[in-house]
Amino acid sequence: MSKLKTMSMEWTGDSLILVDQRYLPLEETYISCKNYKEVATAIKDMVVRGAPAIGASAAFGYVLGVKEFLNDFNKMKEVKKTLADTRPTAVNLFWALDRMERKFLEIKDDKNLIDLIEKEALKIAYEDIEANRAMGKFGGELLNDGDTVLTHCNAGALATVDYGTALGVIRGARELGKDIKVYADETRPYLQGARLTVWELYKDGFDVTLISDNMAGWVMKQGKINAVIVGADRIASNGDVANKIGTYSVAVLAKKHGIPFYVAAPLSTIDLNTPTGNEIPIEERSHKEVRFCHKSKMVPEEIKVYNPAFDVTPNELITAIITEKGVVKPPYSENLKKLFEK
Amino acid sequence: MSKLKTMSMEWTGDSLILVDQRYLPLEETYISCKNYKEVATAIKDMVVRGAPAIGASAAFGYVLGVKEFLNDFNKMKEVKKTLADTRPTAVNLFWALDRMERKFLEIKDDKNLIDLIEKEALKIAYEDIEANRAMGKFGGELLNDGDTVLTHCNAGALATVDYGTALGVIRGARELGKDIKVYADETRPYLQGARLTVWELYKDGFDVTLISDNMAGWVMKQGKINAVIVGADRIASNGDVANKIGTYSVAVLAKKHGIPFYVAAPLSTIDLNTPTGNEIPIEERSHKEVRFCHKSKMVPEEIKVYNPAFDVTPNELITAIITEKGVVKPPYSENLKKLFEK
Repeated sequence: MSKLKTMSMEWTGDSLILVDQRYLPLEETYISCKNYKEVATAIKDMVVRGAPAIGASAAFGYVLGVKEFLNDFNKMKEVKKTLADTRPTAVNLFWALDRMERKFLEIKDDKNLIDLIEKEALKIAYEDIEANRAMGKFGGELLNDGDTVLTHCNAGALATVDYGTALGVIRGARELGKDIKVYADETRPYLQGARLTVWELYKDGFDVTLISDNMAGWVMKQGKINAVIVGADRIASNGDVANKIGTYSVAVLAKKHGIPFYVAAPLSTIDLNTPTGNEIPIEERSHKEVRFCHKSKMVPEEIKVYNPAFDVTPNELITAIITEKGVVKPPYSENLKKLFEK
Repeated sequence: MSKLKTMSMEWTGDSLILVDQRYLPLEETYISCKNYKEVATAIKDMVVRGAPAIGASAAFGYVLGVKEFLNDFNKMKEVKKTLADTRPTAVNLFWALDRMERKFLEIKDDKNLIDLIEKEALKIAYEDIEANRAMGKFGGELLNDGDTVLTHCNAGALATVDYGTALGVIRGARELGKDIKVYADETRPYLQGARLTVWELYKDGFDVTLISDNMAGWVMKQGKINAVIVGADRIASNGDVANKIGTYSVAVLAKKHGIPFYVAAPLSTIDLNTPTGNEIPIEERSHKEVRFCHKSKMVPEEIKVYNPAFDVTPNELITAIITEKGVVKPPYSENLKKLFEK
């Protein structure tokens, strides 16, 4: 019997079942992770992706570690390290693991250790859904009835435990009675926009149009876009935002066309310990992702490739950051800090 | 025995043999067009692409028409229309066909009609190569030793009769003894950058790195790019440039980063009859191109797609236009006209 079941993940108590996002939407297959190592592999291989979804998955991976090693803290440090070493950019991963470790150390009641640690992971997961719904409400207010929104990558139900961050805002606007249309960048090289965002929104009844990444500027120039909304993998304390590669270009283009550029992310994505975007580690992924287009090889091995998985959008290009505690406007250095003081 | 043979095309006197650019670089196959209709199909289906290459191919298609219909002008009007109706944006196509028709009407010597009309097509082809070499010299002067250049789509030997326009400039710089590195946008949806530019430059010994289109901004932000060079499908009389979709975004990004943005194109691409970019017809191509990534299907049919094949870069984003008659700087309305007065 599952204790949590959403589009992106299911927690049965004994395993974490993930929809394999590498094969969506044409194949709907599931991977069942029965131990922490399988969860780590699933994160590393992008079976599950999206900063908040990675965070929650890692928390459940930590639970599987406790089930295996009980109160052996040395072993649990190893578990934590294995789960943390999977992806470097999204800070939710480290945030969730730190929180699980704090809870682990706090628990004195060995008899109920597994129950209590599982409760913490479920709390992280349910809090994420709640945060997304709150962002949807706050962010939904920023959009106008009839707006067409451009989004990049997938910051939807599939990137979170449920509902989504950027796509949560679009859903929130609809719940406020607004009619919102969406253009989705396909988001090369991994095609999260084409494969996940478009599928997720289409299934949810939205009017969504798929474009190649390089069409975003032209679509803006033609006046088709009223707002841009993206998610985030890490937000530095000055408001610089690391997000999927291509986000920076979209932000520059939005600025050029006078289109508001919104970032939607929970507080778990905000890293006050990272002063600016310059200090955010940017993962470089396998060159195969660029050499292949979806499943199809298009260039030979000898061709040199560059594949940064993320880029950093400087704070001055960001109109507002939508969080579960409200909409944050510049100056970000000041206003992001305040979120944590409330 | 061939009367012209380059990387992109061969004219045997009886047929036009084209390398099938849809399958490069992993498959090197050739299509032999024995009549004008086969040439029209090859242009429409993008066996051959690139404004100057399309122009020359159409000219040879016209020759095949004359071989079939001799001096029957009504039939030749049909031939011209069939060849012209293949692609709407690149003006070289119409330019070459108009020139062939003018020559056709000029020839009074029916006995030598085929020979004379074939000579005109070969003249168009050889003039294109010469123009590209001249652009290479003029444009090569604009680049500095050690520069890294970003290019979009394929404006190389494969897009022309030989040598290339934008890639011709890169070759020209090398011939001036300069060391030039290249970043190539993959250029979705048709992947001309990934499949053609990278292959062509690699074979030619250049240090070339493939990136996804959405990485261009980030690569610029990191200071890796010293200049952008692209080709053109049509240049309006005010200097607005229609080129492969995504060019506009690259131009905006170059401006933002203070990087010079050059367009290389022969006079046959400049259309003084088109006042501004607003009047250039933009071809919308099959949605299948976006739904598929290379040969691999990634989204189902029910997903809505937008697929403009070109966009327009306004003249204010263009640092200079490199032609076979020299480098043109703003004000373009004035200076482009002067090219035709010389």
